[in-house]
Amino acid sequence: MAHTSVDEHAALIRSLVALPTTTETVDLWSALGRVTVAPILSPVDLPLFRNSQMDGFAVRSAEVSAGTSLPIVGEVAASPGEPAPLEPGTTVRIMTGAMVPAGADAVIPVEDTTVVGGTVTIHRARSLGEYVRDRGSDTREGDELLPAGLRLASRHLAVLAAAGIARVEVRTRLRAVVISTGAELTRPEHGVAILPGQIYDSNSVALDAAARAAGADVTHALFNGNDESSELRGAMLVASSDADLILTSGGISMGEHEVVRDFLGEIGGAIGHIAMQPGGPQATGTFAGVPIVSFPGNPVSTQISFEVFVAPILREYAGLPAAVRVSRELTVDVRSIPGKRQFLRGRTVGGGRVEPVAGPSSHLVAGMAASDVLIDVPETTTELKAGDTVETIEL
Amino acid sequence: MAHTSVDEHAALIRSLVALPTTTETVDLWSALGRVTVAPILSPVDLPLFRNSQMDGFAVRSAEVSAGTSLPIVGEVAASPGEPAPLEPGTTVRIMTGAMVPAGADAVIPVEDTTVVGGTVTIHRARSLGEYVRDRGSDTREGDELLPAGLRLASRHLAVLAAAGIARVEVRTRLRAVVISTGAELTRPEHGVAILPGQIYDSNSVALDAAARAAGADVTHALFNGNDESSELRGAMLVASSDADLILTSGGISMGEHEVVRDFLGEIGGAIGHIAMQPGGPQATGTFAGVPIVSFPGNPVSTQISFEVFVAPILREYAGLPAAVRVSRELTVDVRSIPGKRQFLRGRTVGGGRVEPVAGPSSHLVAGMAASDVLIDVPETTTELKAGDTVETIEL
Repeated sequence: MAHTSVDEHAALIRSLVALPTTTETVDLWSALGRVTVAPILSPVDLPLFRNSQMDGFAVRSAEVSAGTSLPIVGEVAASPGEPAPLEPGTTVRIMTGAMVPAGADAVIPVEDTTVVGGTVTIHRARSLGEYVRDRGSDTREGDELLPAGLRLASRHLAVLAAAGIARVEVRTRLRAVVISTGAELTRPEHGVAILPGQIYDSNSVALDAAARAAGADVTHALFNGNDESSELRGAMLVASSDADLILTSGGISMGEHEVVRDFLGEIGGAIGHIAMQPGGPQATGTFAGVPIVSFPGNPVSTQISFEVFVAPILREYAGLPAAVRVSRELTVDVRSIPGKRQFLRGRTVGGGRVEPVAGPSSHLVAGMAASDVLIDVPETTTELKAGDTVETIEL
Repeated sequence: MAHTSVDEHAALIRSLVALPTTTETVDLWSALGRVTVAPILSPVDLPLFRNSQMDGFAVRSAEVSAGTSLPIVGEVAASPGEPAPLEPGTTVRIMTGAMVPAGADAVIPVEDTTVVGGTVTIHRARSLGEYVRDRGSDTREGDELLPAGLRLASRHLAVLAAAGIARVEVRTRLRAVVISTGAELTRPEHGVAILPGQIYDSNSVALDAAARAAGADVTHALFNGNDESSELRGAMLVASSDADLILTSGGISMGEHEVVRDFLGEIGGAIGHIAMQPGGPQATGTFAGVPIVSFPGNPVSTQISFEVFVAPILREYAGLPAAVRVSRELTVDVRSIPGKRQFLRGRTVGGGRVEPVAGPSSHLVAGMAASDVLIDVPETTTELKAGDTVETIEL
């Protein structure tokens, strides 16, 4: 795959990553943000029974006109228990949500009445059905409450609960393993002083968080061994035993010690160069049935590679919306390398404008942190002027 | 607070809810989505040391022109250890990210060289500093890496990791307790058959999920006791011992058994009516120093009350963006009650248009689930025509 385009490489990765088809059943308290597998039909009518929309008096509407007085013979609260049928010529107090007694067919709001002793005088007539919520007026048994493939928000969980559904079948989360490689890497949490030539690993933190933000379950590992592919094979054996996707950073460029490149070569992976900057070197493979997507080790290259190639797949699977693309106006002139699609870091400023942050170099991790969009400069563009419109991708 | 406006009630709740000022320190793996408390300054220069941008050869630039040949006297990998200074008249192989030896001041990319035996011939000159990343060229010790009040995304965690910062001080999450009240309520998970007059509690599921989606930690409780305010006081004692905010649903309207109203009355809370539909009855109070925000019990009223009055506060505290408001075109005529701000449930359709879903009634929980926006109809509006522009709030 020498110098394929960004879109071609994205398509390759999409074809490689088999999304999980397994499901699990979770209770509603754990279902926020999960994705339904199948349409969910209502097991009941909603409302479950005919009930009052107001606090007031349940009546037979035909008996009531302006000035009608009726004896109050009881009360129906919103509580368990079935009320007695309403006797003709009488009324009962009724609370919002309470079951309307058999025989009653309308509710007079308390605001339209005067109560003296045990008698209520009603100030205006109501027609049949007024302030009564019919059984099934919201949804019917067998109706679709929620479609398949829906990311569950609070209002979706609410209707499941209202229908008496306590558990819901959802897509299993995609399990990603992140392996950051490089003999020069260490981690601040290890608590040992950094040596000359060592740097702090930021790629596993970045990929772990980015994949979780895209809806995946993630485990992470730091591989800072002796750059022998047999050791990486061992790490891959462990990773592939429990993963749907393995992401690696580092070790795939043209240097002498490229452990991921060596390993992917052994397993028949594809190592090549994409017409993009940052993130030119890219590689893929499959090990023990698990797809491997390998990014270059420069932190900005890794982060942008994930956003461009993997995040869209994970987000779609998790029912999350695609990254928002917005056209914005450049504040300054920008040059770009011919034949490479550039993803510049940008910061939005007022008035729908964007300014590049830091330079194009792929080690500028602080510049990446200071940006809020990527500026997507097409392969064929070499020069942009202040005021030109560019496509930006929200981070 | 008789018939105050939505905006006035929103302001009251904002003044009532004291946001936590406590902080906690978490490791980077747990910091995704948390909010920084103070600006974070870099404890180091980044890059930590002068390193190579390419795989190639480290040289003294003044010694190199097109055709220069140099003996290869060593190799510098990206790995721990400080390389020996570069002797004049020699070169060393160098890998991307490896420390540039003292004496060397440029790197010749491997693509621009030919190696025969132990000698490299360089095809073009490079000026001082080319393909060398200077120490501190990304950020300097003491520079601000991240501002205060920032919701941490993967790229922010990456720069902290790169700077050797393993833990970060963040805002404590707001702890909300959700209490759904109503003697008629039961829960499907209880596994007992529902009785006539009972309904399934959906409000605690809805408020729990909505508050978590807005960044809070939530515990939830179902209060389906005998509607005695002394019992609710007991529940409130437990809730207030460990919460920043108590949300209740139900029990604040004009009926005979309004346990939340009774309790708030006892503690000097405010119970009233807001010029909105759904969600007219609203109440607030403070118990044991903890603010209580009380919504009516109809499921749609509860959900919309949360979105209108509480979600904006929680989202802002959690560093989440405000709900998106978009102007859309109505597909059909709509009538609205004069003097009430209506929040109709809507479903977006193609072409920037929105259609109302289900009716305005506050029990239509399936209709709420089928909507993706609220249509915000001003108090003074009584009639809207198909084609009119309305404000919508994305759910």
